[in-house]
Amino acid sequence: MGSLLVFLTDFGTEDGFAGVMKGVALSINPDLKLVDLTHNVRSFDILGGALILKAHYRYFPKGTVFVGVVDPGVGTKRKAIAVRTPNYYFVGPMNGLFDLVLQEEKPLEVVELTNPRYRLKVVNNTFHGRDIFTPAGAYITKGIPLRELGKKVTYKRFLKFPKPKRVRGKVIGEIVYTDKFGNAVTNIPCGKFRFCTFRNLKGRFVKNFLQGNKSSPSFICGSFGLVEVFLPMDSFADRFNAQRGERVICHF
Amino acid sequence: MGSLLVFLTDFGTEDGFAGVMKGVALSINPDLKLVDLTHNVRSFDILGGALILKAHYRYFPKGTVFVGVVDPGVGTKRKAIAVRTPNYYFVGPMNGLFDLVLQEEKPLEVVELTNPRYRLKVVNNTFHGRDIFTPAGAYITKGIPLRELGKKVTYKRFLKFPKPKRVRGKVIGEIVYTDKFGNAVTNIPCGKFRFCTFRNLKGRFVKNFLQGNKSSPSFICGSFGLVEVFLPMDSFADRFNAQRGERVICHF
Amino acid sequence: MGSLLVFLTDFGTEDGFAGVMKGVALSINPDLKLVDLTHNVRSFDILGGALILKAHYRYFPKGTVFVGVVDPGVGTKRKAIAVRTPNYYFVGPMNGLFDLVLQEEKPLEVVELTNPRYRLKVVNNTFHGRDIFTPAGAYITKGIPLRELGKKVTYKRFLKFPKPKRVRGKVIGEIVYTDKFGNAVTNIPCGKFRFCTFRNLKGRFVKNFLQGNKSSPSFICGSFGLVEVFLPMDSFADRFNAQRGERVICHF
Repeated sequence: MGSLLVFLTDFGTEDGFAGVMKGVALSINPDLKLVDLTHNVRSFDILGGALILKAHYRYFPKGTVFVGVVDPGVGTKRKAIAVRTPNYYFVGPMNGLFDLVLQEEKPLEVVELTNPRYRLKVVNNTFHGRDIFTPAGAYITKGIPLRELGKKVTYKRFLKFPKPKRVRGKVIGEIVYTDKFGNAVTNIPCGKFRFCTFRNLKGRFVKNFLQGNKSSPSFICGSFGLVEVFLPMDSFADRFNAQRGERVICHF
Repeated sequence: MGSLLVFLTDFGTEDGFAGVMKGVALSINPDLKLVDLTHNVRSFDILGGALILKAHYRYFPKGTVFVGVVDPGVGTKRKAIAVRTPNYYFVGPMNGLFDLVLQEEKPLEVVELTNPRYRLKVVNNTFHGRDIFTPAGAYITKGIPLRELGKKVTYKRFLKFPKPKRVRGKVIGEIVYTDKFGNAVTNIPCGKFRFCTFRNLKGRFVKNFLQGNKSSPSFICGSFGLVEVFLPMDSFADRFNAQRGERVICHF
Repeated sequence: MGSLLVFLTDFGTEDGFAGVMKGVALSINPDLKLVDLTHNVRSFDILGGALILKAHYRYFPKGTVFVGVVDPGVGTKRKAIAVRTPNYYFVGPMNGLFDLVLQEEKPLEVVELTNPRYRLKVVNNTFHGRDIFTPAGAYITKGIPLRELGKKVTYKRFLKFPKPKRVRGKVIGEIVYTDKFGNAVTNIPCGKFRFCTFRNLKGRFVKNFLQGNKSSPSFICGSFGLVEVFLPMDSFADRFNAQRGERVICHF
């Protein structure tokens, strides 16, 4: 049994970009277990990636190393980092992707991945996931301490994540993500709401999907731990052409 | 070497719903091997999921635990179950998803997953795949007997799966599924057919795809063990806008 | 720790075709590690599959067995083969899929998979990936020598892969693939180019994606080791409706 390396990227699964990172990882640590959290973050969508990571990381075993790569600035001056927290490691670009998770998991040690010994010999400016981040993650699973990987840096936040506003009796938030089923995830944490509104359509805050209204938005505490807008057995996002940024208000 | 846990869901691979279940599983049994049969069953398509599971389960090693989750009724009164058969275990909602496989594999023991000890501490009404089914499956791989997981129940069928009709000299069936290549899978088991018809178009029952007619439907014994309608190196489903439920007749 | 079996197919991940091969592989060798390089090669796209395999194989550990299946001629007279090279094994149809990789990795031994002992008992004419190639690959990981799998044959090339033309001061090539981000991969190996042209649009050869022009094609040394045409944080292929075969010229 080796350690666990978990990937979150926007690389897709078509082109082998996701697969080749596993070749790199297993070349460094053949005992590694590899899990894909997702490779289908929307291209360049740092906020989406940050949300997905925050929603799910805590279900993984203590000590798991997450390699997160949504990295439109690959090859530029943005920093490549590894972060140690009380329970996990996070490796990837310092561009906001880890901002949400590090609100919950305190960064105890942050290093920039500058040591050429722990990357591939040839680094391509278009693919640090393969050449820098996966090697760093794999070496961490082998027990290489972070201070070996590079120089200490201070974690800097980049993500503009909209905060819900708490006014008395209600929370004003917005859609931040839509999932595979067409449910729209908001930035409003689950709570004991009576009802919510979207585009002035009032809908019940229900306990399961089948309680939802067939043609008008209903609301539920979803799998991200956030309020979601949905249509039962249908795609709310498609039917209403719902966009990220659209307002949702939930009433206690 | 641990045991094998196999997933079949309609969760997609975009949002981390598939990945997070692996975090849960490996937290319970770190030695587990995990395989994705598919996470891309069409949303809410219980019949499609049932067909895919039936087509493939028998190729997995004896003792494999299948976690199957196509579960539009998640959080409602539909039962969460685990089933033991002579060769396998099946864990998921009792909503028809296992009806086809359990026609072949006799259910020896069926329990409702009521024991809170073998689920996550917090159960969300939108995600029993993560909170109930995966934990149950992972505990089964650790040797927990089904009677520990909950109370005995009787398996009940829910799937309305169309049966092909055998009239002398022919079998009358219908399209039940279309695959990635645009081949249309019927409910007609493979047999020594001479030809079949679709929308009154007569086509040969061929031995390999390249024997098919370029512009008119041909028929073959496909990878599900069922008759398929296809166009060689083309998408039959797209070209003919073929729908589930459309009739296919095969002649001996 | 067992050996490593890596899949590259056009089977998609919807229908269980990718997953079931893992059931077959683990039935033969339960200690195997399995990696998906990709199952989303475009349907029947042998050239695309060949390119993806060539781009990534060398990042996998020595001894890795690749099962490659893009196989429109499944069930016809095209040969099912296993190839041993100095560092790897390749198993699949002899239809051009391995032509590019075997330009780099010399085939030391090539056999046709004729021995029924090392395939499934029932072979379906539509799914040699499951019934012939995966079993052969899994048996290779168990140490079965190639000569046991079948009779020696000579590797024959089938792929018509366009060669770039080197004229003095420039390389004339063409688009051979488009990736998930909409970047168009050419057949021009990376070099010290100053600029390139596409449809008479001249664009800089840049060092990272963000240096690219927002509305007009730029060029970069991409993750395949080949020149790519791109738009920064946008899909070049979509915006320009770029097609495989369109000419790209790069100037030193």
